[in-house]
Formats: sequence, C-alpha cells, structure tokens
Amino acid sequence: MFTEDTIAAIATAPGVGGVGIIRVSGAKAFPLVDALFAGKSAVPLTERPNRSIQYGRIVDPKTGRTVDEVLLLLMKGPHSYTAEDVIEIQCHGGPVVVRELLRLVLSSGARLAEPGEFTKRAFLNGRIDLTQAEAVIDIIEANGEAALGVAVGQLDGTLATWIRRLREELLTMVARLEVTIDYPEEDIEEVTTAEVAASLTPIMADMQHLLATAKSGRMVREGITTAIVGRPNAGKSSLMNALLRENRAIVTDIPGTTRDTIEEGMTIEGISLRLIDTAGIRDTEDIVEKLGVERAKEYVSAADIVICVIDGSTALSEEEKDILETLKGRTAVVFINKADIATAITAEDIAPYGPFAAVAAISAANGEGLDVLGHVVKELVYGGEVQGDRGAMLSNIRHINLMETALALLTQAKENLEAGLSVDFIVTDMRSAWETLGDITGDSLRESMVDELFSRFCLGK
Amino acid sequence: MFTEDTIAAIATAPGVGGVGIIRVSGAKAFPLVDALFAGKSAVPLTERPNRSIQYGRIVDPKTGRTVDEVLLLLMKGPHSYTAEDVIEIQCHGGPVVVRELLRLVLSSGARLAEPGEFTKRAFLNGRIDLTQAEAVIDIIEANGEAALGVAVGQLDGTLATWIRRLREELLTMVARLEVTIDYPEEDIEEVTTAEVAASLTPIMADMQHLLATAKSGRMVREGITTAIVGRPNAGKSSLMNALLRENRAIVTDIPGTTRDTIEEGMTIEGISLRLIDTAGIRDTEDIVEKLGVERAKEYVSAADIVICVIDGSTALSEEEKDILETLKGRTAVVFINKADIATAITAEDIAPYGPFAAVAAISAANGEGLDVLGHVVKELVYGGEVQGDRGAMLSNIRHINLMETALALLTQAKENLEAGLSVDFIVTDMRSAWETLGDITGDSLRESMVDELFSRFCLGK
Repeated sequence: MFTEDTIAAIATAPGVGGVGIIRVSGAKAFPLVDALFAGKSAVPLTERPNRSIQYGRIVDPKTGRTVDEVLLLLMKGPHSYTAEDVIEIQCHGGPVVVRELLRLVLSSGARLAEPGEFTKRAFLNGRIDLTQAEAVIDIIEANGEAALGVAVGQLDGTLATWIRRLREELLTMVARLEVTIDYPEEDIEEVTTAEVAASLTPIMADMQHLLATAKSGRMVREGITTAIVGRPNAGKSSLMNALLRENRAIVTDIPGTTRDTIEEGMTIEGISLRLIDTAGIRDTEDIVEKLGVERAKEYVSAADIVICVIDGSTALSEEEKDILETLKGRTAVVFINKADIATAITAEDIAPYGPFAAVAAISAANGEGLDVLGHVVKELVYGGEVQGDRGAMLSNIRHINLMETALALLTQAKENLEAGLSVDFIVTDMRSAWETLGDITGDSLRESMVDELFSRFCLGK
Repeated sequence: MFTEDTIAAIATAPGVGGVGIIRVSGAKAFPLVDALFAGKSAVPLTERPNRSIQYGRIVDPKTGRTVDEVLLLLMKGPHSYTAEDVIEIQCHGGPVVVRELLRLVLSSGARLAEPGEFTKRAFLNGRIDLTQAEAVIDIIEANGEAALGVAVGQLDGTLATWIRRLREELLTMVARLEVTIDYPEEDIEEVTTAEVAASLTPIMADMQHLLATAKSGRMVREGITTAIVGRPNAGKSSLMNALLRENRAIVTDIPGTTRDTIEEGMTIEGISLRLIDTAGIRDTEDIVEKLGVERAKEYVSAADIVICVIDGSTALSEEEKDILETLKGRTAVVFINKADIATAITAEDIAPYGPFAAVAAISAANGEGLDVLGHVVKELVYGGEVQGDRGAMLSNIRHINLMETALALLTQAKENLEAGLSVDFIVTDMRSAWETLGDITGDSLRESMVDELFSRFCLGK
C-alpha cells in the first residue's frame, strides 16, 4: 500500500451551506483527529466501531476552546475512499468554521491535499482504475443527467473491464506469434498468422463500434453548441427566453454556465445545450442595423445544431432566404415563429430550402411547439436508437485518442500479417496497441500522465 | 414528538465540491431512502446499526439506472440533528448529481424542506432551545474566528442556562409576592417587598453586565466598520491594499465580502473588519479633484474605527489638519505613511489634534507598522480585558432588545416596590419580564416569532 503522509482538505463546495466536511486520509488520520476531538466517551477513535458516526466537539488544544460541534465519520482502510484510514469531520457549513477546522487539522500534522489527491491515492492504492478516477471528475462536472449517466457507467468499471478483456486477447495472440519466432516452422507460422488475422477482425470491429459512440459521448459530456439565427425581430431572443424559462430552474445552480449576453446554458432531454444567440453577437459588436449573415455563418459552421427563427407573420424576406441557404448540410431546426398571431408562412414554404432536421410552427410567446427541439437533440445524440448501456460510451478525449491510436496500430498489424511481413514487425505493433490500451485504464502506468490527470480535480476529492 | 411529513434538502453549499449531501428527516426517511438504495447486503436500513455508514448505490427505480455511488449516514431519532429519523446521502459533489438525487428523494415522497426547517424541527422536538438554534445560523455566517467563538459558546447553551436560572429566581419572587396578595398581612408584605427589592439588585446588575457586552458582541458578530480617510495620494489605497494583501488568503473565500470599489472585508485578531476607502467614495462619484471632507465626514461618523492616513513626506497640509479636526471624539488611528521614504512629520506633530487611539509611523509600501491596528481593534472590542467566557456575550440584536425590555420592566418593578405601590402592579411587571426573557430561549413560545426566525436559515439546515 501507498502510505506517505496524512492529507486533509475541505471536501464540500466553498460558500455557505448547512454542512461542511473536512476529509483527512492517511496513517495518522485517526490519532491526529482524536487529539482534537472531545466526545462523551474516552474510548480512542481507533477502538471505536469502523464505519460509525461519532458525535462530539472539536477543541483547539492551544486555547481549550470549542471550534464546533461535529460528527466524525470513521472509515478504516482498505475499505475507504482512498483505501487508507479516512476520517471525515462533518461540521456546520460556514466558511469560517470549515476553514478553522482545516487549520487545526493542518497544524496538528496533516498536509493540505493537492487537488484530486484523495482520488489519486485511491488509484495508487489499487482501489480504482484510471477510467474510474476520471469518472469521478466527470460526475462532479456533469452538466446534465445524460452526462451524469455516462460518467456513472464509467465509474462502474464497465469500460475498464471491456478493455482488460481486449488486452488479454491481444496478449494471447502476441504470445502465439512469438512462439513462431522462437520455433520457426513454416506451416505453424502460416496457420498461426491466419488465425491471428481472423481473430483481430471482431476485436477491431468492437473498437470501431465503441469509437462510433465517441461523437455522441463528447456531445453528452461537453454539451451541444446550438446557434440561434434569424433576421432582427423574428423572435430569436424571445425563443431563447422561452427555452430558458422552462429550463431556468434546472440551469441556475450549475456553475460554469455562461452568463454573458450571447451564450446561455440549458438542459433538454438530460443533455446540456449551449445556446448562442447570434442577435447577441451582433448587438455586442454594435452593428445594430445589419443582419450580419457573414458573422452568423461562422457561428453556424461551429454549431452542432442551428435553430433558424423565421417570422411567420409576413412572407419570407430575402434575408431569410439567404439565411436558410446557409443551413445546407447542417443539423438545422427551422422554427416558424408567431404561430399564435398569424401564419403567412407554412412548412411547405420552407421545405425547398431543406432538408432540415425539423420544421415547426411555434410561438415563442406561449411556448407552443418548442418540444420538437428535444426530439432533434435525442436524434442527434443517440441516432434515434434506444440508448444502450451508457457505461460503454466513450466520452473522454483522452480515451478516444488512445483508442484511435490502438486501432491504427492493430490495423497496421493486420495489413502486415496479410501482406506476409516478418512476424517481428507485427508483434511490435500489437504490443504497442496492448500498451496504449493499458494507458486508458492506467494498467500501464506512466507517472507524468497520472500527475497531469489528477491535477484537474477539485480540492477535497 | 413533532412528526409531520418527511423533508429533504441539499445540505452542502451550492457549487462544485468533492462531496455533496442530501439530508432526509422524518418518520419515512429510512423506508424512503431504502427503496432507492442498492448495497451489498439486503438487510433493510432500519435493521442496520444506528449511527453507521453504509456504502452502496442510489438507483432510479423507474429506469433501473445508477445515479451515483453513495455513503448513507443512518441516524435514528431521537439522537439525531432533528431528533427524528435522519439519513444523510453523501454523494459526489457535482451540482447535477446532487440535484438528481434530491429529485429522486422528493419524487419518492419527501417534501422539499424550507430554509431552516431541520433546525426548526430540532427546536420543536425540544432538542435545542432558541438561542442554540440561532447559534447555528451564527456559526454558519460567522465572519471571523471571534464571531465563531461567540456563536459556538451560545450553541453550548451557556446563555440559555443563565437565562433559565434568572427566570427561576424571578418566578420565586413573584410567588412570594403573590402570597402577600392572597394573605394580606402588612408586616409580611413589608418584609417580603424589602427582600424582593434587595434580591432584584444583583439580578439587574447581572443583566446590565451582560448588556454591556452587547456592543462588543455586535461588533464581533457583524464586523467593525473602518473608514480610511486622508488627502489624495497620502496612501489610502496603498494602505488598503497592504492590509488586504496580508489578509487576502483568509478573506477571499468568505461569501458576502463586499467586492465593490469602496468596501473590502478582512479579519484582524479574528475579528471581521469592513474597510471603507473614502478615496473610493470620491472616485466613484466623479468628484476627482476635490478632497471631499464633507462626504468623508459622513462615513467617519458611521464608522467604528477611523484610520487617517497622513503623508509623512511633507509637512501637514491645511486639508490634513481639517481632517484631523473631524476625528475628535472618534476611535481613530493616525498612520503617518511613507516612513520608508521620509519623516517630515512625527507623532508629536499629530498629538495636539488628539487624543487618538494610536499614532504610528508606517509604510504602506512594505507593511511596516501596520500591526498597531490589531491592538486598537482588540482594545475596542474587548476593552483591553482578557476575554472572558465568550458564551455569555450578547451579540444577537433580538436577544439584546428582549434583555433591555426585561431590564426596563424590572427597573420599574423595583422603583414601584420602593415607592410602596400595590404589589399587583409589581407582580405584573415582573411576570412580563419573566415572559420576555423566555422569548430569548423560546421557552415562552410564540409561533409567528418562531416562523420568522427560522426563515432566515439557509436551505438544508
């Protein structure tokens, strides 16, 4: 087991809450906290039941003054978050009290934990693999239920299990090929290489299948960029407000949701959308009376979904026709707005400019017709299929890159096999693929990579 | 016991943290969470050890999907925060996951708790009194270690114990006086009233003594308003920055610390200071080249401490003399700045304008001499005395007002006793005082008061 010093950090979000937690982990966690703790009983914390909750006070040993009433959570290793001895001090959730308790713990001999250090220890102590550690960040940073689902699936270890099975198969093949190097008998080599080439096919298909989920996985994890375009007064801002109003309660408490004038966050079907109001873009740049088709085009080309708002109360203007033209080849939804007032335009008028993902008459004023957006989002992310086991969805760019590298190496190995090249070459490529896949789970550990990865965590995790 | 519905809320601060907590309290807390929980063992939560920590997953019963890995804290009433059955669900500290878990708990039959409702239940169930409940808010909102100390003292019940003793004594006296009403024998009445008047004296002295702590208590609790005055370029902003730089690490994570141009928060000697840079006041109002003595005066009169910054590199200007004149009768610290460059002015030049709490040569540039401020703060708050038992310090405006009312009633009762007025009058006043003191602890409960009080809490407490 990895046991260096004892670390401590505030584990709850900063700010005012009902409850705050100071997490302490390491060999000295129990005696260190015990020296600060005054409970009803004098029994040392190490001798109290494991996984129990102890009520008492934390007392500053220098002044003899109570800092707060607390609950202690006693969790002895290896069955704890870090697999070390862990104590969590649950106190009142004020910033000063939480800080004071941390200060006491640190001055009693604990070291302030680096961001992610608790999870890093869980990994280094072998409790979790690298994909599970990354799932912890993803769960904390999830921007919607769908992203949460993918992260929790990954926390289960589904991806890691799948990759380990893959690596075992590769290793078996490598072993079989190496036998032919050591004992070069031509007929055996021929049979073996044919067999290996054949068994590589389903493995590579599996990898390709997983990589195919990557686009969806990325959209689920990072959110869908959605540009709203349309001529002035078509109702872009009303639409934005209508969409946000329905979702506001869900969105408001998500940190990182952009709050500037042109970008807003919302979730729909559990998936995070980053709404970009191109009207806002124009306004903020003081080009008030120009449509700004050129600029809108840039946003359109970067967006995953484009929502085009058409004023349904008057015939299609030239500007609007121009905008519709720019949507060719994009995943676009055309909303014919002001359905509650007038219907000078119908879906048939729009159709010739298509195809579009959807065309719908809506009313930004009363919210009518907006639900079509949810269908488009689901179709885009899940391809209309019933969602399968999300645990096997690739969403992490690090995993995607490594998987692509491994697949490229195997493709090369297979080609070389079929071309009858020296087995030495092929074994080298397959070994590299095996190692690259191990980087995903952390089984082939490279220290610099691990350090970089855990530095992305928040404090106290 | 007070048992209505089962309530739930997020108990940790909003935002991203390592750990989030959903607190559930009420008769149905255990079966409700059990229906969502999947652990290794199938033993119902109610049959697992009380005050134990259970590891498992929360599963959405509709989709069968895991929402997060969690720890459950099982705390059966009456030995729990609310004195009801309480379960805390400890999950990963992401806003989406915390919200999803709360949504599940609510859709399983819990009601969203109102702000302060957990603490309100603890009070209504008789686990804590009103001063202890208020101490919970004060601990959470404490702006420095000193305020925390007062609040924790109050949480101990020291104030309540003291008040209960007082009320008992009053009730004994009232009973003795009432006997003389029922059995009016003149000599008994005379002896009794003399005795009661005599025993009122030490009680009233105690109350006065406690009320004398109120000013300090209020300053500790709400922070000390500190105005920085001086002519332009004397070094007000440098001083502010120098003071803040040393304290910045402590201050930054306290919410509510004002961040606008003229007011900043810091703690010194564990006491919160609200620094008002009167230069900032002037600048923000665009009267750039005017000294603004008049306006600064307003801030000076509202401040607990005034810091006057004098440019020590040149002789006293007329402006500076004017400013020094305005400080008459105030708790003022005069800083002769630029001690590192020149000393055209000494403490002797300043003395005639005094008396001042302190006069010191400082350097805002290198931080020299600033520590005198800490001494002045301590002197102001604690009157130079060694700090006594902070638990008996009055800091809550509600307590102060009620204590003042009770003291006024007793003063009147004593005067009437000594004037030989009818015992009926006196008994009425003493009963009112007894009741008023009961309002502090909540022993004489008035529902509207209780509702108003708990509405000030944050959610999840």
